Amino acid sequence: MFVKNMKLPILLDVYGALLTERQYELLDLYYNEDLSLSEIAENTSLSRQGIRDAVKKAENELLTFEDKLGFAEKKEKTEKLLKEAARLAGKLPADDSAELLRLIKEISETD
Amino acid sequence: MFVKNMKLPILLDVYGALLTERQYELLDLYYNEDLSLSEIAENTSLSRQGIRDAVKKAENELLTFEDKLGFAEKKEKTEKLLKEAARLAGKLPADDSAELLRLIKEISETD
Repeated sequence: MFVKNMKLPILLDVYGALLTERQYELLDLYYNEDLSLSEIAENTSLSRQGIRDAVKKAENELLTFEDKLGFAEKKEKTEKLLKEAARLAGKLPADDSAELLRLIKEISETD
Repeated sequence: MFVKNMKLPILLDVYGALLTERQYELLDLYYNEDLSLSEIAENTSLSRQGIRDAVKKAENELLTFEDKLGFAEKKEKTEKLLKEAARLAGKLPADDSAELLRLIKEISETD
């Protein structure tokens, strides 16, 4: 059985720029647009099996990038720590509290 | 002329895991150990020119990763924002201040 890996959309977001345009489009259709392998195959010259192999290959590349660089895991950890920091903002005077929350939002969007 | 790129040590730190072991060692000797191309060549079977070409190739790979992913730039931006956040810690009660500084340190080390 071929199961969608729920971590893949995050990895596609983080490392997608390292894939070829074709690989990116394929995973985008499969994960973000939630098309089936057969539906994707219908609009291409490839068979369902050909699409399946191409998806698997691109997935493995993303998993290898994460295995080597770990940026998705770091991002997740950073988000948790930022949430803890945001809880402390309430103990600051109003202006400083707003400033800390603004910084936390900006770090989250940068990361 | 062949000039050392001062951003390269940071890129080597961020993306080094995507290079081959040999490429990583080469850039590590050249940038972190500050050996010259000739000094590196002396300990290998390659000419100074061969080393130069290999360094250039590995450097270009790192620059391409940064061009596509921008993680080094994001890391630098996050560090600046964390420093701003750290300045606000002084306005918190002592325990909360220490907690915010601990979180900021952890985010910095994660990122």
